[in-house]
Amino acid sequence: MGKNLIVAQSGGPSAAINATLAGVIAAAQEAGAVDRVYGGLHGIEGIQAGKIVDLTGFADFARLRATPAMALGSCRCKLPPVTERDAEIYRRLREIFAHFDIGYFLYIGGNDSMDTVDKLSSLFAGEADAPVVVGVPKTIDNDLPMTDHTPGYGSAARYLAVTMDEIIQDTAIYNVPAVTIVEVMGRNAGWLTLAAGMPRFTGGTKPDIIALPEVPFDENEFLRQVREKLRHTPNVVAAVSEGLRDGNGAYVGSSAKSGAVDVFGHTYLSGVGKYLEGLVKREIGCKVRSIELNLMQRCSAHLAAGVDLEEGFALGRAGVEAALRGETGRMIAVERISDSPYAMRLRTVAVSEVANQEQLVPEKWRDLDDPEAVRGIRNYILPLMQGDVPQFRNEFGMNTYVSFLNWKYAE
Amino acid sequence: MGKNLIVAQSGGPSAAINATLAGVIAAAQEAGAVDRVYGGLHGIEGIQAGKIVDLTGFADFARLRATPAMALGSCRCKLPPVTERDAEIYRRLREIFAHFDIGYFLYIGGNDSMDTVDKLSSLFAGEADAPVVVGVPKTIDNDLPMTDHTPGYGSAARYLAVTMDEIIQDTAIYNVPAVTIVEVMGRNAGWLTLAAGMPRFTGGTKPDIIALPEVPFDENEFLRQVREKLRHTPNVVAAVSEGLRDGNGAYVGSSAKSGAVDVFGHTYLSGVGKYLEGLVKREIGCKVRSIELNLMQRCSAHLAAGVDLEEGFALGRAGVEAALRGETGRMIAVERISDSPYAMRLRTVAVSEVANQEQLVPEKWRDLDDPEAVRGIRNYILPLMQGDVPQFRNEFGMNTYVSFLNWKYAE
Repeated sequence: MGKNLIVAQSGGPSAAINATLAGVIAAAQEAGAVDRVYGGLHGIEGIQAGKIVDLTGFADFARLRATPAMALGSCRCKLPPVTERDAEIYRRLREIFAHFDIGYFLYIGGNDSMDTVDKLSSLFAGEADAPVVVGVPKTIDNDLPMTDHTPGYGSAARYLAVTMDEIIQDTAIYNVPAVTIVEVMGRNAGWLTLAAGMPRFTGGTKPDIIALPEVPFDENEFLRQVREKLRHTPNVVAAVSEGLRDGNGAYVGSSAKSGAVDVFGHTYLSGVGKYLEGLVKREIGCKVRSIELNLMQRCSAHLAAGVDLEEGFALGRAGVEAALRGETGRMIAVERISDSPYAMRLRTVAVSEVANQEQLVPEKWRDLDDPEAVRGIRNYILPLMQGDVPQFRNEFGMNTYVSFLNWKYAE
Repeated sequence: MGKNLIVAQSGGPSAAINATLAGVIAAAQEAGAVDRVYGGLHGIEGIQAGKIVDLTGFADFARLRATPAMALGSCRCKLPPVTERDAEIYRRLREIFAHFDIGYFLYIGGNDSMDTVDKLSSLFAGEADAPVVVGVPKTIDNDLPMTDHTPGYGSAARYLAVTMDEIIQDTAIYNVPAVTIVEVMGRNAGWLTLAAGMPRFTGGTKPDIIALPEVPFDENEFLRQVREKLRHTPNVVAAVSEGLRDGNGAYVGSSAKSGAVDVFGHTYLSGVGKYLEGLVKREIGCKVRSIELNLMQRCSAHLAAGVDLEEGFALGRAGVEAALRGETGRMIAVERISDSPYAMRLRTVAVSEVANQEQLVPEKWRDLDDPEAVRGIRNYILPLMQGDVPQFRNEFGMNTYVSFLNWKYAE
């Protein structure tokens, strides 16, 4: 009989993170070296509190893959420095891992979660019989270094491209000057905003304006562009990142945010979309609307990309294989072999080179008037957002999902 | 040789209005009594300006059905009273109709558009050789009287039910008290908000709170409910109509709206979702987020309901048949025969009984704790949101749509 494996999820959700969980569970169930397969609820926070379920007999893989968000729940929890070896949470985790005879710990998450993998693997380094800790990446933001992309990005990109295309159709119907500002997630990296630009990059003319967080944003230049576009089309559509900053690095609209108060004297926390809506209304005076795509861009499982879910599953599997090989402190990464036909291979990288770091859109892809940049972006994003996925519906035609949050805790 | 037919679209878009257009064009092409089939761009406004395209040879029906928004464009234009028979616009329309030898005018739209049908048919009443004017309904709001429902509603309902279900999954992952407020379209009628409640009405427990515009909204009662729900679940989800009003009929948050100003002294026009977000943050103090589903609920063609597009097409056909029978001043209406199996038949009603009127959610369906009401709502909405629809994609996997807006004008 082998050791046991525990898997957990952390950070923000996506449409593909449960595909990775499915891959982990499937591979662990098949591995002779793994006895029981456990799931930790609400990430590291739930694990230290003993919120653990037994997934050894789980079999509903296809439905789990199609479930958005996180079937095991999530947390946002930063571990103390490894030098604080006696911290309460480290003591609790050691106890739990010992109690459940954990030999392998798989953590699925983004930058912050890789910090947890890094710290735990450092903590256990050199200890005989300590768990192997492996990270499996996911984030719709696609901002992890050392990997071509991250599972979750392709599905979010597909949602953004399809939705932006539909918004463009919707806004084209009236013959009066109008500006539509679509705010896209991505505090520092513009990968999602690029995806919202796909209707233009694949041969269309809109969105007319695409503003990445990597490029300092100039309000006057934005207004100039809007005015210029309005001379040629009645309907200007802009895709803007939520993380736009001015030349001084201040978030666009942050001065307005600090100034705006409601009747109770409380600050309005409006996003950049609402701010730019106000700016255009005031300075240009035409009809203007802002749209925040909000949670839908990360949870729209009905628009998940088949390629993304396939890869998410494969990365989960690869995580278990790396753990069985004893590769502690490593993260699974994607290496692209070819754009067309699309091909990639998986490898492992040191999680310390990923944790707490961000991969921004490269310099060469920031000038969206450059045909070479557009070709590069299109070839990069397109393969990741392909493929329909099956939906699992009940007798009412409503989607059905898997959740482990109400399962009985293992003892 | 027969007379010519012209069709146009007006009001707000939906995912099904082009299906109706396709039905009109197909039936008109097949009708021996119709010579040429014209399309008026941007509704009545474009027609009076001579913006007319020739659709006689159009054949791309399947793709037109799958195109969101309005392939002919739209307008928001209210005709003057019919007593002003010599108004410039009536003079222009008569000229254009005469020039293009129009025998039949089909107008696809909602309440306001039916006002146009009503006025034009009254204007032409009793005149020899005047065009027959027929209305074909559409509106995602589903607020037209005299018809069981309107094309466009089923697709919007499907979008809302699926999206709400995904949002519920997304918000369930963290174990900290949080409130999510989803704002749904529908200024006066709660049909769309009921659709957002489908995850609960089909066996789930969320959305925890559903607030219809037909029911006076009490902020204190809302806060009491949120606090009560937070005692049983960490994640409270509310679906609220954009048109919520207090006991005095004032829009919820409107006092805050008039008070809130940005640093430039300009009023913030925040919706009810943002307002309630602020209210919960201030009064309860937990994590809170508001989501405005915005244009997506009316343009998400990728989630259109097959039944809705079928019916949209059938109503378009029926409109042409009614026109050929000479039924001027009539609108096509849906009469439901049975919920399960779902069956309906089409008939015509006097457009004067529809124009400028609103069908609200009936009294008996406003108490959502009443199992009888829930059963009635479920049986009403479910059949309308069934059926997947094919997508038409290009070599990049991007959806492709039909638009007549760039066609050459007919002379």
